[in-house]
Amino acid sequence: MAICCQSPFKHINFSSHANPNPNPTSRKFPFVCNFSLSKSQSVPLVAEPEPVLTSARAFAPATVANLGPGFDFLGCAVDGLGDFVSVTVDPTIHPGQLSISEISGPFSSKRLSKHPLHNCAGIGAVAAMKLLGIRSVGLSLSLEKGLPLGSGLGSSAASAAAAAVAVNAIFGGLLSPLDLVNAGLESESKVSGYHADNIAPAIMGGFVLIRSYEPLDLMKLEFPLEKDLFFVLVSPEFEAPTKKMRAALPAEIGMPHHVWNCSQAGALVAAVLRGDVEGLGRAMSSDKVVEPRRAPLIPGMEAVKRAAVEGGAFGCTISGAGPTAVAVTDSEEKGGEIGETMVEAFREGGGLKAVAVVKRLDRVGARVHLEKSSKLKNNGMGKQE
Amino acid sequence: MAICCQSPFKHINFSSHANPNPNPTSRKFPFVCNFSLSKSQSVPLVAEPEPVLTSARAFAPATVANLGPGFDFLGCAVDGLGDFVSVTVDPTIHPGQLSISEISGPFSSKRLSKHPLHNCAGIGAVAAMKLLGIRSVGLSLSLEKGLPLGSGLGSSAASAAAAAVAVNAIFGGLLSPLDLVNAGLESESKVSGYHADNIAPAIMGGFVLIRSYEPLDLMKLEFPLEKDLFFVLVSPEFEAPTKKMRAALPAEIGMPHHVWNCSQAGALVAAVLRGDVEGLGRAMSSDKVVEPRRAPLIPGMEAVKRAAVEGGAFGCTISGAGPTAVAVTDSEEKGGEIGETMVEAFREGGGLKAVAVVKRLDRVGARVHLEKSSKLKNNGMGKQE
Repeated sequence: MAICCQSPFKHINFSSHANPNPNPTSRKFPFVCNFSLSKSQSVPLVAEPEPVLTSARAFAPATVANLGPGFDFLGCAVDGLGDFVSVTVDPTIHPGQLSISEISGPFSSKRLSKHPLHNCAGIGAVAAMKLLGIRSVGLSLSLEKGLPLGSGLGSSAASAAAAAVAVNAIFGGLLSPLDLVNAGLESESKVSGYHADNIAPAIMGGFVLIRSYEPLDLMKLEFPLEKDLFFVLVSPEFEAPTKKMRAALPAEIGMPHHVWNCSQAGALVAAVLRGDVEGLGRAMSSDKVVEPRRAPLIPGMEAVKRAAVEGGAFGCTISGAGPTAVAVTDSEEKGGEIGETMVEAFREGGGLKAVAVVKRLDRVGARVHLEKSSKLKNNGMGKQE
Repeated sequence: MAICCQSPFKHINFSSHANPNPNPTSRKFPFVCNFSLSKSQSVPLVAEPEPVLTSARAFAPATVANLGPGFDFLGCAVDGLGDFVSVTVDPTIHPGQLSISEISGPFSSKRLSKHPLHNCAGIGAVAAMKLLGIRSVGLSLSLEKGLPLGSGLGSSAASAAAAAVAVNAIFGGLLSPLDLVNAGLESESKVSGYHADNIAPAIMGGFVLIRSYEPLDLMKLEFPLEKDLFFVLVSPEFEAPTKKMRAALPAEIGMPHHVWNCSQAGALVAAVLRGDVEGLGRAMSSDKVVEPRRAPLIPGMEAVKRAAVEGGAFGCTISGAGPTAVAVTDSEEKGGEIGETMVEAFREGGGLKAVAVVKRLDRVGARVHLEKSSKLKNNGMGKQE
């Protein structure tokens, strides 16, 4: 099914429109993005861009949100797990519209709609078309689900991120990473709430702190390049619906726990910036607000956490809203051993089958696979190779 | 009045006692201190140390605690404001006891007791003697108050820090900075509650994050040496008792404000570590939990904050429990202008007279003034010059 990209999305201002100050500071920007992933900036689109590629294939990584005391404002990307989206200029699609042609991959599911506005990839792609002002070109999209749904690994964000990035590539990459996060937020707000802690790292890679939404203000936290960080991700066969996990949250937090979690959030940020994997693990393990409410809803989670730490992990918590458990360590080999103990703890403590993988921090975020993308003949722009 | 140092303080374990692990990690330490101020470590004191100086004079700086969303876990030291304490080996004092001989200085007050256990300097000094196991030497102490009481600038912590450091210097500096923080905490717990967010930066300098109390775990956050940071401190003639300001705090915090303040705490820590004065100011200004309750209790504070930011400060909040307002900027000259607008705002908005000073970040913390200290003849240790 095709859908017009001119559906009524919330209007997104561009910084150069909203801030005529010739010497602007980030405090005055409607959008602020403190990161170094890309030098591209939001630009006012005065004319509809033309395609520079006939097709583009993009990948977006899995993400671990919350990280304990980073609840609802911190997430990071995980290498080697994620979704692929291919987008093609398609003359059979009505100009300005998008159609989902195929959903495949190991985690393809009947629960995934092909209606572009009921599918995360579709919503992300359409939002990107809207931001670019695409009216004259029709696109078709195919999604390869590499992530399971409802696993706590940012599956919906990965689809939206890959789709927005693929659409952007088709039209010469005019959208900034912040624009792409906004496109992905259109999708996230429909499936799991207006939270950027998965979509921002899915787009930008590494660790991203969500500083505010009005304006959207993202801080990329650089984990030092010379340091290694591995995530042990253990996913049990259990459904932990985001809505149920949100309902378990306390409405109010007592002052001592508030102060505690704030200090652990600060320590978590310091550990990331210093590349202190041990400190990161300790901070990640220290949540007294959210994890204590959610862990009992996932059979075996408390035993899994104990097993991870006893097995040598620096820390362990619930990934996103679960049910995946995430532990951190500084060696792939240790990660494998820790994963085995965690799988065993899910079996013994929760009666659940589980699968473990060990993955590095993804520092890049969503990217176009150019060898799988096709340049438009005589496109005249020459920006993409 | 003299007081025996063997009064029943809480027993303090030393890390090397409690952790026989030959390859310890900070997770397993009863005390953890991630900072680089001093290489000295806690040592098990097997014998009572002998004095290496006949007298020692120490300075400890003013401190700004809370910094908005850093409530109760973050503080920093401010250069050029603080208390001096001189400690002298005194044969007229009963061995193992301490006497306060004099209280002087611009902020000497009748409210300051000379009873060592009713005076912050006395409590800090006696706690340090206790940690060192001093039984055979009597000490006399004189305090020069350079900080006003109840100003929100860590006056009590500065007295305790200077006293503990002076006692430690007399006996060869055997106590680690973490021991000294513990000594100061004995005092803080008696006057303003068991909070280390003033005493830790007063001892260690710079920014210090209090990660936990059980065990006491402190993280020094290094503000980059090449960056300048100035505090504009504006103290009105108004009393804001810590107890009243504590009573104004909410008992519970709604989840949205909890998440907001946690994210701002993370952003604050990132800004400190990056030397991003503008980001630090924005984060400092962003507290939605404590400042909104306390600011209305200080006449003019809301107007002062507005005036500071409109005058070019990167951010402004209440220092400690107030009534001092603290703003940050990156230039001493700008700081002077901002201070004038803040003083004017206290007058117009609150009907209060106020005084402004502009001070740099103190990166050192409490220190001994060796030129004012006296070496013991033939002490045989030669550690102090």
